[in-house]
Amino acid sequence: MFKILKTEGLARRGSFITPHGEIQTPVFMNVGTQAAIKGGLDAFDLHNIGCQVELSNTYHLHLRPGEDLIKKLGGLHKFMRWDRPILTDSGGFQVFSLAKLRKISEDGVSFNSHIDGRRIFMSPEDSMRIQSYLGSDIAMAFDECVENPSPYEYVKESCERTYRWLERCKAELAKLNSREDAVNPGQVLFGINQGGTYAELRIEHMKRIAELDLPGYAIGGLAVGEPTAVMYDILDHLSIIAPNDKPRYLMGVGTPSNIIEGVARGIDFFDCVMPARNARHGHFFTKAGIINIKNKKYEDDESPIDDTCCCYTCRNFSRAYLRHLFKAEEMLAMRLGVLHNLTFYNNLAKEIRDAIDQGNFEEYRNEYSSLLSQRI
Amino acid sequence: MFKILKTEGLARRGSFITPHGEIQTPVFMNVGTQAAIKGGLDAFDLHNIGCQVELSNTYHLHLRPGEDLIKKLGGLHKFMRWDRPILTDSGGFQVFSLAKLRKISEDGVSFNSHIDGRRIFMSPEDSMRIQSYLGSDIAMAFDECVENPSPYEYVKESCERTYRWLERCKAELAKLNSREDAVNPGQVLFGINQGGTYAELRIEHMKRIAELDLPGYAIGGLAVGEPTAVMYDILDHLSIIAPNDKPRYLMGVGTPSNIIEGVARGIDFFDCVMPARNARHGHFFTKAGIINIKNKKYEDDESPIDDTCCCYTCRNFSRAYLRHLFKAEEMLAMRLGVLHNLTFYNNLAKEIRDAIDQGNFEEYRNEYSSLLSQRI
Repeated sequence: MFKILKTEGLARRGSFITPHGEIQTPVFMNVGTQAAIKGGLDAFDLHNIGCQVELSNTYHLHLRPGEDLIKKLGGLHKFMRWDRPILTDSGGFQVFSLAKLRKISEDGVSFNSHIDGRRIFMSPEDSMRIQSYLGSDIAMAFDECVENPSPYEYVKESCERTYRWLERCKAELAKLNSREDAVNPGQVLFGINQGGTYAELRIEHMKRIAELDLPGYAIGGLAVGEPTAVMYDILDHLSIIAPNDKPRYLMGVGTPSNIIEGVARGIDFFDCVMPARNARHGHFFTKAGIINIKNKKYEDDESPIDDTCCCYTCRNFSRAYLRHLFKAEEMLAMRLGVLHNLTFYNNLAKEIRDAIDQGNFEEYRNEYSSLLSQRI
Repeated sequence: MFKILKTEGLARRGSFITPHGEIQTPVFMNVGTQAAIKGGLDAFDLHNIGCQVELSNTYHLHLRPGEDLIKKLGGLHKFMRWDRPILTDSGGFQVFSLAKLRKISEDGVSFNSHIDGRRIFMSPEDSMRIQSYLGSDIAMAFDECVENPSPYEYVKESCERTYRWLERCKAELAKLNSREDAVNPGQVLFGINQGGTYAELRIEHMKRIAELDLPGYAIGGLAVGEPTAVMYDILDHLSIIAPNDKPRYLMGVGTPSNIIEGVARGIDFFDCVMPARNARHGHFFTKAGIINIKNKKYEDDESPIDDTCCCYTCRNFSRAYLRHLFKAEEMLAMRLGVLHNLTFYNNLAKEIRDAIDQGNFEEYRNEYSSLLSQRI
């Protein structure tokens, strides 16, 4: 299912087969929280910007419109008209970051909906049922994502519970997807490594979850408050003991530089809301850093955001026009901005893949960091 | 410049040549107030939905980003990447509907910006300068748009002033567009008929402005409070005396039925914010009337908004998905909705042209009204 095609140092060039096609790794997955991409992009826009994997959020879709409806309508792919791979997160991260008055027990988590405040309970089995009904290609284990830093003892206990939850997830998803009416019987489960900023707990937890022989492993609970150096240190430790023949997914990370450094530490999958969120504030990614389009100096600038970029926005519109759209608060500003930033991230992943293919990833990595040190 | 190709009763099938190409009439113009279409559509989207004329607002563009900047950047066409005809309104309507603390004199109007409250003065000459700098193909005269009903004496005086303003507009625009640095030297001026709901004043005013021999005439100040029957009655009167060889533009109107009835009374140009505004509230046009996509009954409806519609939205997405996008407040909801409703309006105008071409406009008109009497 996962094939490593080439390596350079710890960097891996791979391919992962799903029921909706092959994913070339390293890959950046594009976030479509509620089965739509922020900024007014649809599934066909995703095709056009080179997206390989769309990522939807179990927590959000459970609240609205509900997994029963999506199952009835044939699953998420059909619902949003995306025929390539979809990964769904487990809801764990959102329950711990968005929901209110959360109460955790061995059984699961109860919390208040961030939309209407109604009380909701979600267990590992619930998360699996929702994801099975959504019919994503990759389901994520239901875990507890602790904030960094958290006390050692709490993180240790949490890791143990997350491990027990993972066993329950594995058993439940296998049961669900062997049912005759399963939306996507080929759906697979990725486990999630936790352990906060404690290398010892991270390693111990990774060893235990590796024994479950899942089709992929994610690293969760990083880039949630700790310094970047700590994150890289954890990745260095994990790169040695994470199963080599399985894809590795660094959840919710990060800047272009974080992604390159993640690849250099053996990571294959990434996702992040940063490109879309930045775009919505008029912050555009270029190889030489982020530009803020609202800056007065772009007022009469007829050049594109980035003249080396081949995205729809850069091929057609000037910085001056984009600045106007942002100042005038036109929705089109968001759309053109998100199209640029997501293209930038998808291209970044492609450049990384090409570099590994050609055996010059290390060169690419150095070149990129020297570019980033020049500011526009 | 304006050629009538065919008539059926008072309905006219025509062609109007502008510096940015030919307009087939009757035409529905698509509103892009701030040089962008609400809902996140750009100029290429307009091409794709069959838009012939984009309409931008002088008042809004004067406030933001300013006509000097747009002139410096080569005009509105280049700025927003739209290479077909553009009509700009004069700002008159917005000054009277949006701006605050307005004070009118023979010279012009002073008012407070609806954005930052700063005091602004706009004369007929100012409006012409702004429109000349924007470089639209059709500039509109600066007029006073009175609300309906208004006292006879006030409307009479206002009409006289609007006439004097029109003379000033004509002289000023000719001067501006003969300058060497004119953005669009082929820009033409349309006069605007006023007179509130008083047929006598309407007729008198139309006769006077007709003497100025302008390339086109608009009817302003209708659909601003009076009953539809009153509007049709005014149109009946004007259809007899408006210059026959000039295009006639009914400003800011209206429903599909208003447009068909306008055509039946000799109108050639229409514009309205209704399709985009309705779309943003989840109200979609179909031949059998408006459907409200937020209605519970569409929750699991896998059919398109309108299965006879060939728009991007109807070709690709279900009512169930659109309903979800609206309930989840995704920007994509607006975009897909506006794409549908504007396509509906552009198609309506095309069907009207085809019907006149084929000599069965009257049949089309009857069929449409019987369709509208059936509700979904």
